[in-house]
Amino acid sequence: MLTAEIIAIGSELLTPTKTDTNSLWLTEKLNEIGIEVKLKTIVGDDKSRLEETIRDALKRSDIVLSTGGLGPTEDDITRTVSAQAVGRELVYLDELEQDLRERFKRWGREMPEINKRQAFIVDGAEVLPNPNGSAVGMLIEIDNKIFGILPGPPRENQPMFTNFILPKLREKAGEIYVRRKLLRVSGIGESAVDEAIAPIYKSYSNVETSILFNKSEIELHLSAQSKSESEADAILDELANKIVDKLGVAVFAMNGEKMEEVIGNLLKENKKTLSIAESCTGGLVARRVTEVSGSSEYFIEGAICYANEAKIRSLSVPKELIEEHGAVSAEVAEAMARGMREKAQTDYAISVTGIAGPTGGTEEKPVGLVFVGYADEFQAKSFKILLPGDRYLIRWRASQAALDYLRRQILKKMQ
Amino acid sequence: MLTAEIIAIGSELLTPTKTDTNSLWLTEKLNEIGIEVKLKTIVGDDKSRLEETIRDALKRSDIVLSTGGLGPTEDDITRTVSAQAVGRELVYLDELEQDLRERFKRWGREMPEINKRQAFIVDGAEVLPNPNGSAVGMLIEIDNKIFGILPGPPRENQPMFTNFILPKLREKAGEIYVRRKLLRVSGIGESAVDEAIAPIYKSYSNVETSILFNKSEIELHLSAQSKSESEADAILDELANKIVDKLGVAVFAMNGEKMEEVIGNLLKENKKTLSIAESCTGGLVARRVTEVSGSSEYFIEGAICYANEAKIRSLSVPKELIEEHGAVSAEVAEAMARGMREKAQTDYAISVTGIAGPTGGTEEKPVGLVFVGYADEFQAKSFKILLPGDRYLIRWRASQAALDYLRRQILKKMQ
Repeated sequence: MLTAEIIAIGSELLTPTKTDTNSLWLTEKLNEIGIEVKLKTIVGDDKSRLEETIRDALKRSDIVLSTGGLGPTEDDITRTVSAQAVGRELVYLDELEQDLRERFKRWGREMPEINKRQAFIVDGAEVLPNPNGSAVGMLIEIDNKIFGILPGPPRENQPMFTNFILPKLREKAGEIYVRRKLLRVSGIGESAVDEAIAPIYKSYSNVETSILFNKSEIELHLSAQSKSESEADAILDELANKIVDKLGVAVFAMNGEKMEEVIGNLLKENKKTLSIAESCTGGLVARRVTEVSGSSEYFIEGAICYANEAKIRSLSVPKELIEEHGAVSAEVAEAMARGMREKAQTDYAISVTGIAGPTGGTEEKPVGLVFVGYADEFQAKSFKILLPGDRYLIRWRASQAALDYLRRQILKKMQ
Repeated sequence: MLTAEIIAIGSELLTPTKTDTNSLWLTEKLNEIGIEVKLKTIVGDDKSRLEETIRDALKRSDIVLSTGGLGPTEDDITRTVSAQAVGRELVYLDELEQDLRERFKRWGREMPEINKRQAFIVDGAEVLPNPNGSAVGMLIEIDNKIFGILPGPPRENQPMFTNFILPKLREKAGEIYVRRKLLRVSGIGESAVDEAIAPIYKSYSNVETSILFNKSEIELHLSAQSKSESEADAILDELANKIVDKLGVAVFAMNGEKMEEVIGNLLKENKKTLSIAESCTGGLVARRVTEVSGSSEYFIEGAICYANEAKIRSLSVPKELIEEHGAVSAEVAEAMARGMREKAQTDYAISVTGIAGPTGGTEEKPVGLVFVGYADEFQAKSFKILLPGDRYLIRWRASQAALDYLRRQILKKMQ
């Protein structure tokens, strides 16, 4: 297997608020053709450290990619230092300067003299054109290694990588295809999922399976390597189907869809409409549902009733119900869903009421206690959960529980 | 100035979905005592690359910190490789094994034999206790350099760094204090802000100022270095006040507060209540307002009226108004705010109606067109904006515009 290293260049990437993210996309693309990333370095405008980094990387790995440091200012040291690291000269290309002058002219400006720096390249490097910016990239082949020098902005380096570096790497890596599949699971814990499916995925030696817990759901990342894309996809589909047979309705997404997208597709398919009544989630459930483009087809209305009077006024929750059971109760959750549905005249309504904290909890009703309600044309019902986490996580998990409850109800009705 | 390098260890940090974030917090703490991070490396369970990385880092920099790879499994190579890199033996500490056995006993479990690995430390290293996990850290002083070896989880490495490494570094760095201040600005563009305040901040040679644009606001990061904390703070306050004199009401936060926190404080101070009517933002404005703990003191109710009938039914928007001007119009935005306020009986109401895209735009009303409405006891009014970006950004920016509009109205009334 070929190995790669990625070098991110730029002092701003060494501050407390920013870090390199270019390497994530590059890693994905490299992995897809069976190349493994073994090391990443983040370095500022420090000539000796950068030179050492490039030299060491080229010694250790088959492929070295750098991003950033190709701008026109003095801080932009990638050109000079790369030339030193590979022991070559910088050469000036008149046609690059002409291109730059043209580009500035099209913007209605004169080219500042400092941009001339961008007309220099490492001797012998292939020039990689950049339609989206002023810095060209470079591809250097040296001692059977590939050194790709890319600009920093993703919308510049991504097309450049795809168009000019990827084909070279694919040739070098040979016919290996790595395909991925992402399943999402809700309503079961991480270790229960692993216990249930480990015997299945372990029997697929050509698939790498990793299980991650992400806020309120389990992600199953499957990745298969094969000599053809269709073969890799077929292996993944077979494994995914076996996992679904085992876990059942808990698997809510077969292709990485978000919960709100799954809900949207179910509602559209069944030509049903939805309204949402929220208390402790404060608009989060509706925000998630409406994050999906086209959600106006099925989402009609939402109500965020924080105050008790709002629940009474806008959702027709009987005052006595709140007095008797409290606003955070199964009875009020059901009444909220029923009231919302009747008001908005939708097929379904869901509701959430709970205690998101950090204050407001009692011994009887602690922080994290949440009731999720549901109403359709036949019934209103609810369920109770106790969610761990801080305010942010409790709200997020409550929103997920409400959407998952709706999903399971819709699926039940479809049977 | 002392220099530092950070090494993040773990193969999962070299995948397409995860990267090192421990270094951000560490960088902040190092910068605060005047130590600069010059290079970061992310390396997997690759012994030779990790050994080379540690050796090189200790050659180049005064301080080297590593995170991760201290677990009990075979992948956890930090202990062994660190010992090799500094040319020392691993030694077994019986008291560490006893501690581990005790810890497992408290959880009601037997210690698995593999955890014995965690009782080995690099010869001569100071053992750094870990109350939050099973892996102790290590501090090695060698050739006047400091090498700190920390576990991966933030809740383990952060207290360990603060309690045992930071004091050593402070001693080594001498009495330098770097203090930071974050101002947030809304309603002016990045270059206009820079043009207005550059003459001010440039006259402070001991303050580093950086201007960042973040989705819908400008962040002014000020950082001052001095021999005492109070002196650094005084310099920052002086500069911050001059910036506010220049930019006026556009500066909405003096200490990094979020817009929704600023709104919350203003409402609490003035004992006022708020309701929110949303169309295109689909609950995002209310979600932001209710993200703040204690928001139930001032936030009463929200309505998400996607469908026109919902606007008519729940916000008393006159049907004719929608027919005449369309749902995305100044008139409807004002009627939504007015209707919401009357229904919820709040002091203020704000509203948002617009076209978030990607579909639904026309020549007359393009994607990104948003009307923000406002109502108080005297009036209802609105303003129109055309927001750039994709669906996510348009919704975010519309929510920010609505909250900022409210903020400016409240401030006007306070004068």
